[in-house]
Amino acid sequence: MALAPGVRFAARALLRPWALLRGTTLGSTEPAAGGGGDGARRFGSQRVLVEPEAASGVAVMKFRNPPVNALSLELLTELVISLEKLENDKTFRGVILTSGACPAGGCMIALSCDCRVLADNPKYHIGLNETLLGITAPFWLKDTYVNTIGHRASEQALQLGSLFPPAEALQVGLVDQVVPEDQVQSTALSEMARWLAVPDHTRQLTKNMMRKATADRLLRQRDADTQNFVSFICRDSIQKSLQVYLEKLQQKKG
Amino acid sequence: MALAPGVRFAARALLRPWALLRGTTLGSTEPAAGGGGDGARRFGSQRVLVEPEAASGVAVMKFRNPPVNALSLELLTELVISLEKLENDKTFRGVILTSGACPAGGCMIALSCDCRVLADNPKYHIGLNETLLGITAPFWLKDTYVNTIGHRASEQALQLGSLFPPAEALQVGLVDQVVPEDQVQSTALSEMARWLAVPDHTRQLTKNMMRKATADRLLRQRDADTQNFVSFICRDSIQKSLQVYLEKLQQKKG
Amino acid sequence: MALAPGVRFAARALLRPWALLRGTTLGSTEPAAGGGGDGARRFGSQRVLVEPEAASGVAVMKFRNPPVNALSLELLTELVISLEKLENDKTFRGVILTSGACPAGGCMIALSCDCRVLADNPKYHIGLNETLLGITAPFWLKDTYVNTIGHRASEQALQLGSLFPPAEALQVGLVDQVVPEDQVQSTALSEMARWLAVPDHTRQLTKNMMRKATADRLLRQRDADTQNFVSFICRDSIQKSLQVYLEKLQQKKG
Repeated sequence: MALAPGVRFAARALLRPWALLRGTTLGSTEPAAGGGGDGARRFGSQRVLVEPEAASGVAVMKFRNPPVNALSLELLTELVISLEKLENDKTFRGVILTSGACPAGGCMIALSCDCRVLADNPKYHIGLNETLLGITAPFWLKDTYVNTIGHRASEQALQLGSLFPPAEALQVGLVDQVVPEDQVQSTALSEMARWLAVPDHTRQLTKNMMRKATADRLLRQRDADTQNFVSFICRDSIQKSLQVYLEKLQQKKG
Repeated sequence: MALAPGVRFAARALLRPWALLRGTTLGSTEPAAGGGGDGARRFGSQRVLVEPEAASGVAVMKFRNPPVNALSLELLTELVISLEKLENDKTFRGVILTSGACPAGGCMIALSCDCRVLADNPKYHIGLNETLLGITAPFWLKDTYVNTIGHRASEQALQLGSLFPPAEALQVGLVDQVVPEDQVQSTALSEMARWLAVPDHTRQLTKNMMRKATADRLLRQRDADTQNFVSFICRDSIQKSLQVYLEKLQQKKG
Repeated sequence: MALAPGVRFAARALLRPWALLRGTTLGSTEPAAGGGGDGARRFGSQRVLVEPEAASGVAVMKFRNPPVNALSLELLTELVISLEKLENDKTFRGVILTSGACPAGGCMIALSCDCRVLADNPKYHIGLNETLLGITAPFWLKDTYVNTIGHRASEQALQLGSLFPPAEALQVGLVDQVVPEDQVQSTALSEMARWLAVPDHTRQLTKNMMRKATADRLLRQRDADTQNFVSFICRDSIQKSLQVYLEKLQQKKG
């Protein structure tokens, strides 16, 4: 996942559905003072940069974990902390996450968002390519894929480890808009405005209703799933195929 | 919901799945005598008018509860009584419901039908716009929406309170046909003929198999859902946002 | 179902999900010696012919139960035996099933495959037309239909007993490719190569994850479903409508 323009927003993450219930309403929201250059409000950590958008109540979050924005424990920890800060700051009603090409982990984060905007550039792909690395997508990621693109498309894409270029991603429903590269962020902001035009409370209750079954199933089986994954990933054969993949990434870097 | 040409039919309503099991068969059906002008067979109440279609075994039902065909207790009671009359009269094998623009309640009734035909006129919209009124669609209506247009489209449309104009309604799968305004009823009758060409018994068993899980879930949680809704709708904040909406409707009327 | 070019492959059948877990891997697979004319490897029974494809690890299976490839007990028994032979022979990693027009039973087998290729000829139809014969599709076949083409399309197609010509089958998602009649088998082989490019183990685990709930539900209720079906099919009225249908088939044969 490179630092490049795949933008998605409102990352009320699947893992943290309670975030959906924050009692912010449209009228009571204090506009963010200043724009992207507002040093006072801008914050971030080593790997996650958060910039407020002027007067819109929206924060833009960027990953910077070169070379491929790997979702390391450090990056994920900083992501969670940044999201919590935003959730506790009533100034913000929405979040735009900016990423690059989105195989596997990047796609997972995109799927947890309300909307996905992709740059119309063949170098950006999105999808869950786990099988190609010799591993399988976990059930809760499969559930989210099925919710987004349907059962049949998921069955095929998950087995084949398909990464979709922009036009195909749009057609299968994995992204909602494909726009020229220099319009990705402005499109995301326009789209965000549509969502923020709806009263927060009822929109969030509705989102919770749509995603609760999937999130509950994940939470209920999280420990067992973690143990299964750890034992699976530690097998020699799996470690070997992952090593081959990592060496390929190293070559790209070098 | 104004009296205007959005036509749907075979209202074997979601709420009354047993109606699907009526043992009428094609051969044993007595044709309705006379046409729409057959005063002897035409019946109706203050708010629901029922007209038999000549020789086709089909009844056309029209709402007349101006200005917007609000689904008041009175109208719904008359609707249920009219449906029961038709179910007990073996002359009739299908029902065409005629309505106008279909936000919320009108869309709900349309979703319980087997097929939806919409006039190709931008003034007719269909969808579930509850969030815009400050309320949320109940789970059983959400389930029906998901059954019809899929999970992802429902998630987006329910959160945004989307009302679809004809072309978009067709594209998302919310209606099955969009035709010129003066062909809506004839299209519905042709479409009905396709459905009535299939033996009633197996068609109804199949419909029941498709909708039973959704209907059972509603029936199982109906009391709790009613209580939740009543307590929700009685909140001051919700009453206030509904009042704003009703005042808008009044202005349109005046 | 005539002997004609509807080709599907990798029939790791819904009924036998454990077949998905066979530990074959790409590297350890011994190529099949010879081509379709390899008499030593070619096997088959009276109604099911199995031909290995040269060096590809793929077997092509053909039904020959004239006039319509009815899924008789004998044919199904031979099919299961042939699949078991292939599963126990590590030479083979995939199966291509060749059939003709695919109403009901033929469609059922196609749905259990990973991918479906249909000849672009209006004489080939595919679908579940049970209601037209006066019977209903069983719940597990309905589940598989819904997994493939979605809830709404299934509801409509199952009630109407729709048989889709090639273009419509492609559009609704019932087949994955429609190609000229003389390219069906080569297309199936190319497509198969895409699937076999993915490591068997993770692809099969993924397939199992996608289909397990449906298969489990079938296995759990199989005895009750069999009893229900037998008592239903033995009714005089159902026997009569089936007899009418069989007489039509006889006329086509004669």
